[in-house]
Amino acid sequence: MSPKRIHNFNAGPAALPQSVLEEIQSEFLDFKGSGMSITEVSHRSKWFEEVINDAVARVKRLLKLDDRYKVAFLQGGASMQFAMIPMNFLNDGRTADYVNTGTWSTKAIKEAKLLGKSIKVVASSEDRNFAYIPKNISFSKDATYVHITSNNTIKGTQWAQFPDTGNVPLVADMSSDIFSRPFDASRFGLIYAGAQKNMGPAGVCLVVVRDDLLKLEPGNLPTMLKYTTHTEQNSMYNTPPCFSIYTAQLVLKWLEETVGGLEKMATINQKKAALLYNLFDQSDFYRGTADKDSRSLMNVTFRLPSEELEKKFIAEASANDMGGLKGHRSVGGCRASIYNATSEKSVATLVDFMNAFAKKNG
Amino acid sequence: MSPKRIHNFNAGPAALPQSVLEEIQSEFLDFKGSGMSITEVSHRSKWFEEVINDAVARVKRLLKLDDRYKVAFLQGGASMQFAMIPMNFLNDGRTADYVNTGTWSTKAIKEAKLLGKSIKVVASSEDRNFAYIPKNISFSKDATYVHITSNNTIKGTQWAQFPDTGNVPLVADMSSDIFSRPFDASRFGLIYAGAQKNMGPAGVCLVVVRDDLLKLEPGNLPTMLKYTTHTEQNSMYNTPPCFSIYTAQLVLKWLEETVGGLEKMATINQKKAALLYNLFDQSDFYRGTADKDSRSLMNVTFRLPSEELEKKFIAEASANDMGGLKGHRSVGGCRASIYNATSEKSVATLVDFMNAFAKKNG
Repeated sequence: MSPKRIHNFNAGPAALPQSVLEEIQSEFLDFKGSGMSITEVSHRSKWFEEVINDAVARVKRLLKLDDRYKVAFLQGGASMQFAMIPMNFLNDGRTADYVNTGTWSTKAIKEAKLLGKSIKVVASSEDRNFAYIPKNISFSKDATYVHITSNNTIKGTQWAQFPDTGNVPLVADMSSDIFSRPFDASRFGLIYAGAQKNMGPAGVCLVVVRDDLLKLEPGNLPTMLKYTTHTEQNSMYNTPPCFSIYTAQLVLKWLEETVGGLEKMATINQKKAALLYNLFDQSDFYRGTADKDSRSLMNVTFRLPSEELEKKFIAEASANDMGGLKGHRSVGGCRASIYNATSEKSVATLVDFMNAFAKKNG
Repeated sequence: MSPKRIHNFNAGPAALPQSVLEEIQSEFLDFKGSGMSITEVSHRSKWFEEVINDAVARVKRLLKLDDRYKVAFLQGGASMQFAMIPMNFLNDGRTADYVNTGTWSTKAIKEAKLLGKSIKVVASSEDRNFAYIPKNISFSKDATYVHITSNNTIKGTQWAQFPDTGNVPLVADMSSDIFSRPFDASRFGLIYAGAQKNMGPAGVCLVVVRDDLLKLEPGNLPTMLKYTTHTEQNSMYNTPPCFSIYTAQLVLKWLEETVGGLEKMATINQKKAALLYNLFDQSDFYRGTADKDSRSLMNVTFRLPSEELEKKFIAEASANDMGGLKGHRSVGGCRASIYNATSEKSVATLVDFMNAFAKKNG
C-alpha cells in the first residue's frame, strides 16, 4: 500500500521531493552497504565524507561559485546568522547597511543593534506593512556589507532583482528562496539559508562566504561563532548535523540531476506562481497582499473577503488533502508556500479547489 | 531481504536501537497519518508538538527532575555549550571551578578562558595522560558552578560517583553517558549532552538547566546564546532540529518502555562492560588504558602488544562486521564504544572475536 501523501504548502519545514524521501527510506537501515544507518555512521567515516563533499560540490556548481567562496553547513538556523554576521564583520569601527523588508529583516537588524554594532537601516517597507520591496535606495559607500532578505516568507515579497550596491558586497538571508532561480553570486559576500524551506529538513543552515570577509574576523569570538572554525574544517570542527546535511545533499542532487539545474527550476517556479497570481488578478474573491512588482514566487500570501471565509477555506482545503495554507500567526490570512519541491500538480490542484471554493462562496 | 547490519562500536555518531530505526523507516513518508514526512511537518503543528512535548516529559521522568529544571533541545553540540555556559553564568565577577579529565574538559576550559572568564582548574589528570578521575578535590566555596565531564569518550574514563561540591551546583557535559545510569540530578545546575552518542543522531544537544542559574543571565548576549530564549519557548524560538529531536524522542521511549528505565539500563551496561574488562584482567594480550577505578562503562579503550597488531585487529574485526573499533585519532589504539543501544549480543560477539584473535596472535 502506498503511503498517504498530501499536497504540502507548509512555509517551513516544508515539502521535500518524494523521490528523495523514498531514497532515504530505502537505505535507512543500511547506508550504502555500511551495515549502519546514515544516523549511525561516524561523521569522519568515508561514508559521511562522501556525503558532505558531494553536497559542497553541488552548492558550488549550482551557484557557480569561484574559488574565493567557502561553503559551510552550520547549526542554529538563520537566527544564529543574525548574530554571527555582525560579530564577525562589524568590529574596529566598521558599519553596515540593512534593508528592512519584513519580520526576518527586522530580527536581523534588532540582533545587530543588541550586540552594539553600528548599522544603518537605509530602506524599509514598514510603512505599508512590508507589502513591497523598496526601490532607489541610497547605500552608504563605506559600508562593509549591505544586508537584505531575498524573499520574505511571512509577507510574501521577493527581490525580483538584487539592488546595485557598487563595490559593497551584499549579505543575504536566502532561507526561503535559495536554489529557486539563478543569480549572480559574485555580488555577494555572504549568503545564508536555513535549509528547512527550500533545500532540506530543519537543523542545518547553509553558509556561503567570500574570503575577503573572513579576514575581518576578530580573535576573541566564541570558537563556534567564528566562520573560519567551520570553513577551515569542512564543517567538521565538531560533529555536524549529519542527517540534515545528507538530506540536503539528496535534494541538491535532485535539483541538478532530476530537475536539471536552476534555470529549469526557475521556469517551473514561475509557472507555478503564475497559476496563483493569475487567479488573484482575475478574481474579486482572492486578494494578493503583496504589490505586483514585489510578489514572491515562493510564498503566495492572500486574503479572502472575510476571516470566516478564510477559516472555512483552510478547513475545507485541509479536508481535501491540501495542508499548510494558514498565514503566519503574526499576520493572519492565507499563504501557499510553493517551494522547489511543491509540484506543479499540487499547485494546479489548489487552483482548481480555489476556483470551486470562490464559486460556492463568492 | 533484511538489511545488512553490523555490530556498531562507533564513538559517535553511534548505534541506535534497531527498533527505533525501523519505526522511523516505516513512517518516513507518512508521519502518523499526516500525509507528510516528519521532515516536512511544521514545527508548530500538532504532530511535532506532540513529539517535542513527549521528549521533554520523558527526560523529566528519566532524570526525576523537579519543577526547578527546564529542558531544552539546542543546536551546536557540546562545543557550543562550552561557550554558552560561561557567557550566561560568569559575569559580574563570578567564577567557576573546572576539573580537567581529558580532551573535552580541556576544550571547555579553553573556551571559558578565550572568553575572558574567571575560572580555576581545581584538578587535572593530565599528568598521566588522563588515565584516571581525580580524587579528593578541594573545590572553591564561592564558585558559581563546578564543571565536570562525566564520561571521557576519548580517554575511556568515567566518574563512578560525582564529587561532593557542597552547595555549589555541578555543571556536567554528559554527552557520552547521559541516560546510561541513574543519578541524583538535584545536585546539578546544568546538564548538557550532544545527542549523537547515547540518545539520538547528531544535530541536537540536550540541555537541562535549573532556574537559579537562569537568573544569572546578562542582558546583552546574542539572542540564540541565552538559555531563556530557548527554555521560555519550549525550544521553539526558531525552527528546532525536528528530525533529531524526533529520533531522540523514540530513543527515550525505547529506554522507558522497552528497556524499562535507567536502573535496568545500568545493569545491562555494567554487564556489557564487565565482559570486556574481565577479558583485559585475565589477558596479557589486551591492556586497558584507564585505571581500574576510573574505567568507563561506555567507552572501553585498550591497546594490543603492538601497533601492527592493532591495525590487524581492527581490519579483521571490520571484515567480521564489527565496526568503529579504532581509537580516537588523537590517542591511537583501540576503543569499543558500548552505549545503551549496543546490544549484549554485539559485545559478546566482540569478546569471542577478541579471544580468538589473541589465541592466534598472542
